[in-house]
Amino acid sequence: MSTTQPLIVLMTDFGLQDPYAGVMKGVIAGISPHTSVIDLTHCISAQNILHGALLLGSSAPYFPDGTIFTAVVDPGVGTARNAIALVTEKQVFIAPDNGLLSSVMKTENIKECFAITNPSFMLAGQSATFHGRDVFSPAAAHLANGVAPSRLGKAIDPDSCIRIDFPENSPCDSGNSWKGTVLYADVYGNLITSLTGDMIKGKEETAGIRTENGHILSVYRTYGDVDKGVALAYTGSSGFLEIGIRNGNASSILGLEAGDRITLLLNR
Amino acid sequence: MSTTQPLIVLMTDFGLQDPYAGVMKGVIAGISPHTSVIDLTHCISAQNILHGALLLGSSAPYFPDGTIFTAVVDPGVGTARNAIALVTEKQVFIAPDNGLLSSVMKTENIKECFAITNPSFMLAGQSATFHGRDVFSPAAAHLANGVAPSRLGKAIDPDSCIRIDFPENSPCDSGNSWKGTVLYADVYGNLITSLTGDMIKGKEETAGIRTENGHILSVYRTYGDVDKGVALAYTGSSGFLEIGIRNGNASSILGLEAGDRITLLLNR
Amino acid sequence: MSTTQPLIVLMTDFGLQDPYAGVMKGVIAGISPHTSVIDLTHCISAQNILHGALLLGSSAPYFPDGTIFTAVVDPGVGTARNAIALVTEKQVFIAPDNGLLSSVMKTENIKECFAITNPSFMLAGQSATFHGRDVFSPAAAHLANGVAPSRLGKAIDPDSCIRIDFPENSPCDSGNSWKGTVLYADVYGNLITSLTGDMIKGKEETAGIRTENGHILSVYRTYGDVDKGVALAYTGSSGFLEIGIRNGNASSILGLEAGDRITLLLNR
Repeated sequence: MSTTQPLIVLMTDFGLQDPYAGVMKGVIAGISPHTSVIDLTHCISAQNILHGALLLGSSAPYFPDGTIFTAVVDPGVGTARNAIALVTEKQVFIAPDNGLLSSVMKTENIKECFAITNPSFMLAGQSATFHGRDVFSPAAAHLANGVAPSRLGKAIDPDSCIRIDFPENSPCDSGNSWKGTVLYADVYGNLITSLTGDMIKGKEETAGIRTENGHILSVYRTYGDVDKGVALAYTGSSGFLEIGIRNGNASSILGLEAGDRITLLLNR
Repeated sequence: MSTTQPLIVLMTDFGLQDPYAGVMKGVIAGISPHTSVIDLTHCISAQNILHGALLLGSSAPYFPDGTIFTAVVDPGVGTARNAIALVTEKQVFIAPDNGLLSSVMKTENIKECFAITNPSFMLAGQSATFHGRDVFSPAAAHLANGVAPSRLGKAIDPDSCIRIDFPENSPCDSGNSWKGTVLYADVYGNLITSLTGDMIKGKEETAGIRTENGHILSVYRTYGDVDKGVALAYTGSSGFLEIGIRNGNASSILGLEAGDRITLLLNR
Repeated sequence: MSTTQPLIVLMTDFGLQDPYAGVMKGVIAGISPHTSVIDLTHCISAQNILHGALLLGSSAPYFPDGTIFTAVVDPGVGTARNAIALVTEKQVFIAPDNGLLSSVMKTENIKECFAITNPSFMLAGQSATFHGRDVFSPAAAHLANGVAPSRLGKAIDPDSCIRIDFPENSPCDSGNSWKGTVLYADVYGNLITSLTGDMIKGKEETAGIRTENGHILSVYRTYGDVDKGVALAYTGSSGFLEIGIRNGNASSILGLEAGDRITLLLNR
């Protein structure tokens, strides 16, 4: 066994109540018994492609070169949408072609992309509703076994793949502020925003985030810099500005959720 | 290491909040460090043997030959109920003898069955409440190490094992319809029923499911064939007919739950 | 590959909704690809150091010698608190120095302790909020690769590490009773108490637990010894006395929660 033992990473919206994620691992173990499988998360908000795309894009750089990601948030399962294998300079991403790879396609160097159509690399007797088991997992396991991505199906132009729009940040007020958006809340109630830490580099002391419902948050380095119960903004672990409350749930206490507009003030 | 690396699959109702499932893996790692362990799910409805039996039966075929399943939904832990190791043609199932293997015993070819009584293959100082850790996990790990199932305890007649009744489907109306039952709802709110896809083969266009609270669902191949918000019936990934709503929670919206009676209409 | 394949065990309060736990495994796989990783649980009550300390202390003995535990319940992340590697006779524990290892330090034989300060064993570009990814996981992975704990940073006196107070049991009524405390409720609603099974050895028949809101629970060996719906006390799988209800949620039905005072009666 070499140090390049293959690694498959799963990200889905299947949740953990049902055996769907476990069955995907059974299929992989049957095809490629020596491959390690890591769960990135199975708790992407149901059918929320934007949420999945963002988490996949921010998490992938922390996994080794050669990792095979299998991402399934697939409201269109069983319809004509393609299943694709996107090969980047470092890793491979298997997913439905519905925008789930939008963030990865933006940040990684794309080498090639293939439609997954070869039935030799699918389970026999494919269902119309569980391609995670019947299409995506087998494809990943065969790649882990050394099958070339080009054998999965015909090459397609990566530029033809579906991309979803991420909320854009727009400068205003002569560059003294930016309009941005709350992307999602994590399990603690921290709000991850579309604004990035780069925007406030060197201006932390005068920067702040204003919400449309009237809160203004000062920027600190970490929760520990404020007293318990105090709301703050800080650069989160993925490089985005986040809004949190020390020992509290910012989403429920401040009344903020995904899609809410916010303003970054640089010179208060 | 051969390609027949042993694989243990865990299914319990322990949930993921507590360290119970993690501790089972610690015990296995101590006895059989090279064995891979996969979680099928730890979120079987608490003490719901029927739920566990159904999921185990429909999931097992997707795991490799030689897989050792360890299933613990065990309201009678610490009482006189047996712990058993059921050997089928392809796999091994370790569980309390309380009906949890009912579906497996119905669909798999049974070779032999043993009561687990040999203390050499249990943890010392066994508790009365956590046989998942003290009895089932060690037995599985020793089997993964190559111990013959017959060494776990005396052979018992598989026919003497407890079986629970699954809801039966009954034909009526001169074969034009079937009475069936909602088995459970999955995490999306899709309702898995006792009716099977085989029953409607070739009759999809005229078939439908009628609920006792007045809904009639037409049969489609997959969610994508209807508009968002529309309810439908379809053959699910385990071969059972399911009731779902595209982008919606069928259980809460249609007001249906486990145990509800339904009627399959073949010639509407 | 020897039988001493390294094993890393993760325990955090990160939950499973977000990719935090998955990313920790990605970092570990990048540094030490052949190391197995087991989740003890990621559902410690948010920022509840006492809860984490108790579960870690009661679970560790079920894992093999040489296991490297990585425990992250870290309300002070990004502040001056130390990250430490505690080496016991059998295992290694990596955690913030905030009391999370209090139970382990009480029950295990401590050999040495190191502050984790060597940047060679951290991710570059460390964040202020996610030391699970940037500090604790890399340290664990390097130890799994054979790096000596002393290379992580300077030795510190284990006695200088922060310990939190566990609720103490106090004898009263001339030794006929003990005052104790409810420590936490598990996912079934069973209440784990500070009282231990040793206290009632040989006195089970006359022992009972009295709650401040007026319940008196008799002691049985296991749930199966009482009828459905009946409340009882029993020695739990970690050696603590627990309060449960057969097929019911004792916490909600009896109205008890963490911190509630209880009395163990030995001669009713």
